[in-house]
Amino acid sequence: MGEMVENKQIVLKDYIKKGYPKESDMVKQVSKISLNVPDGSNGILVKNLYLSCDPYMRSRMTKSESGYVEAFTPGQPITGYGVARVLDSGTPKFKKGDLVWGFTGWEEYSLITNTGSLFKIEHPEVPLSYYTGLLGMPGMTAYAGFYEVATPKKGEYVYISAASGAVGQLVGQFAKLLGCYVVGSAGSKEKVDLLKNKFGFDEAFNYKEEEDLAAALKRYFPDGIDIYFENVGGKMLDAVLVNMRSHGRIAVCGMISQYNLEKPEGVYNLTSVIMKQLRVQGFLVFEYYHLYPKFLELVLPYIKEGKINYLEDTAEGLESAPAALIGLFSGRNVGKQVVVVARE
Amino acid sequence: MGEMVENKQIVLKDYIKKGYPKESDMVKQVSKISLNVPDGSNGILVKNLYLSCDPYMRSRMTKSESGYVEAFTPGQPITGYGVARVLDSGTPKFKKGDLVWGFTGWEEYSLITNTGSLFKIEHPEVPLSYYTGLLGMPGMTAYAGFYEVATPKKGEYVYISAASGAVGQLVGQFAKLLGCYVVGSAGSKEKVDLLKNKFGFDEAFNYKEEEDLAAALKRYFPDGIDIYFENVGGKMLDAVLVNMRSHGRIAVCGMISQYNLEKPEGVYNLTSVIMKQLRVQGFLVFEYYHLYPKFLELVLPYIKEGKINYLEDTAEGLESAPAALIGLFSGRNVGKQVVVVARE
Repeated sequence: MGEMVENKQIVLKDYIKKGYPKESDMVKQVSKISLNVPDGSNGILVKNLYLSCDPYMRSRMTKSESGYVEAFTPGQPITGYGVARVLDSGTPKFKKGDLVWGFTGWEEYSLITNTGSLFKIEHPEVPLSYYTGLLGMPGMTAYAGFYEVATPKKGEYVYISAASGAVGQLVGQFAKLLGCYVVGSAGSKEKVDLLKNKFGFDEAFNYKEEEDLAAALKRYFPDGIDIYFENVGGKMLDAVLVNMRSHGRIAVCGMISQYNLEKPEGVYNLTSVIMKQLRVQGFLVFEYYHLYPKFLELVLPYIKEGKINYLEDTAEGLESAPAALIGLFSGRNVGKQVVVVARE
Repeated sequence: MGEMVENKQIVLKDYIKKGYPKESDMVKQVSKISLNVPDGSNGILVKNLYLSCDPYMRSRMTKSESGYVEAFTPGQPITGYGVARVLDSGTPKFKKGDLVWGFTGWEEYSLITNTGSLFKIEHPEVPLSYYTGLLGMPGMTAYAGFYEVATPKKGEYVYISAASGAVGQLVGQFAKLLGCYVVGSAGSKEKVDLLKNKFGFDEAFNYKEEEDLAAALKRYFPDGIDIYFENVGGKMLDAVLVNMRSHGRIAVCGMISQYNLEKPEGVYNLTSVIMKQLRVQGFLVFEYYHLYPKFLELVLPYIKEGKINYLEDTAEGLESAPAALIGLFSGRNVGKQVVVVARE
């Protein structure tokens, strides 16, 4: 078994029945772990470096039969995407010293028995935290949702909600690189400035300052929207539907405005789907991971040439993770929310 | 100019502001028409035989900028699909004596100047009224929506609302012929019996007798729905969304429950689009008419072999047309609603 060390962990106290999760729904505990893989296991033992806070994690905090990802287990560490260093390996797929990204635990050290979802990091020359965002799940989400689901063409009109988030900021930049007209919305002046000045969106607006969202969209898209990258749902979707162009596509990535509501908001303008022959398509990134090598081939040169900008919101220390996760739902974070567990 | 004859017409009195249209929104008038095409015109002069009542016509009764088909002109005859005999022609595309189907007027005789939308009837051996339904626009709608939009596979679970209507009854039969499990809903016991006994659906139910539509669908689709052919919208769509299977497709053909509401119903379960990776796609039949020859190739043999059943609800005489059209929105019709203007 080898040496046992202390292992700080963030665990979910209990399932959240309704409403916004709170910091106090998660607690820190300290357990012990061996830094060796148990005999006979084909798992790996890792030291976690960066953890990712992502909106989909809200659904895992509630016990539900219909969730598309498994709910967390109360009393056990939260799990999610992260970047980690392999300390010991029981599988030939990874060796000691490798860097990996994929599903790990919210703790200092994790024994990962299901290594099938892990990617080996072959390009450690970019900041490693990027593998929780730009080069990880959110990056693949942006890539799959934009190129595969929204089927964009040069010159099309693209609208992105929650545009300064991990996924939105990338979708906008992909769209600009393809030659689209791109408008994003976000929830603060600071975020709107980022969209225009750092991420190169053509226009951006603060949705909280718009009394009439449909009118705001009409202002930015007098000829209508070809592609809507949907991160928000509810009222925003309704406002978009009446502003879509014929044959428009709505890539449904998330509906963050709805996740904490006891009853979701109604959407009223769905007859637009017929009138405008829209395609509204939901997707989950998991099914597109086979495109990861193709994605890297596209994105790594963009990063190295400075053609893609990327903004992280970094929380220091495992203890800061609950607050960082909660912040996603009030829009506190600016850019991709990362938690630094350890710097090497 | 030639002989002038009396021409009975049904005209729209004025645009309908809100709510259900009434018979009295349309009036009969008698005008005069020459039975010859005017000199220099490349139109055709037809004698109308059968007129079609279709749900989409509701939207043409209201002045709207966003309508996908042009609104009617108050004081002018209603226009719509029909079957007609060519009496005189100014275009080499059609000659005297030809039978055509396509856009014509709600009147005894029409001068059709836009002949681009007309199809010549090459198979007059089937009942001519079929070209308002099974072999006309509704037939093509069923064909395009099912085969092209819903991309069905053998063995899939298919649900159709408004299933005894002109489109629904065909979609169900196409689905059965492909080897799918097919359930339809309709609004009376008579219609439900038809679905099961005449059209060969596996199951059918009366949605008016179900307090909980989602529970009813769960009963008929314990493993969920792969394809929903949407004719209804509103509450029905909400009930379907929670019963869809992963990667399900919703072909959005119409939302007849919403057309007469001042404010449409809210739809609340759209997060299913993400969780289940659904594709919700609206379509208009106009864009699929290039497939008409392929469609006939499929359907004519089915008709001749008795593999497709078809039910019409026939109203006699042009005078009966307003009541026939209004009846669509209360579900009075059983099967495709046709108006006989003249039998030859």
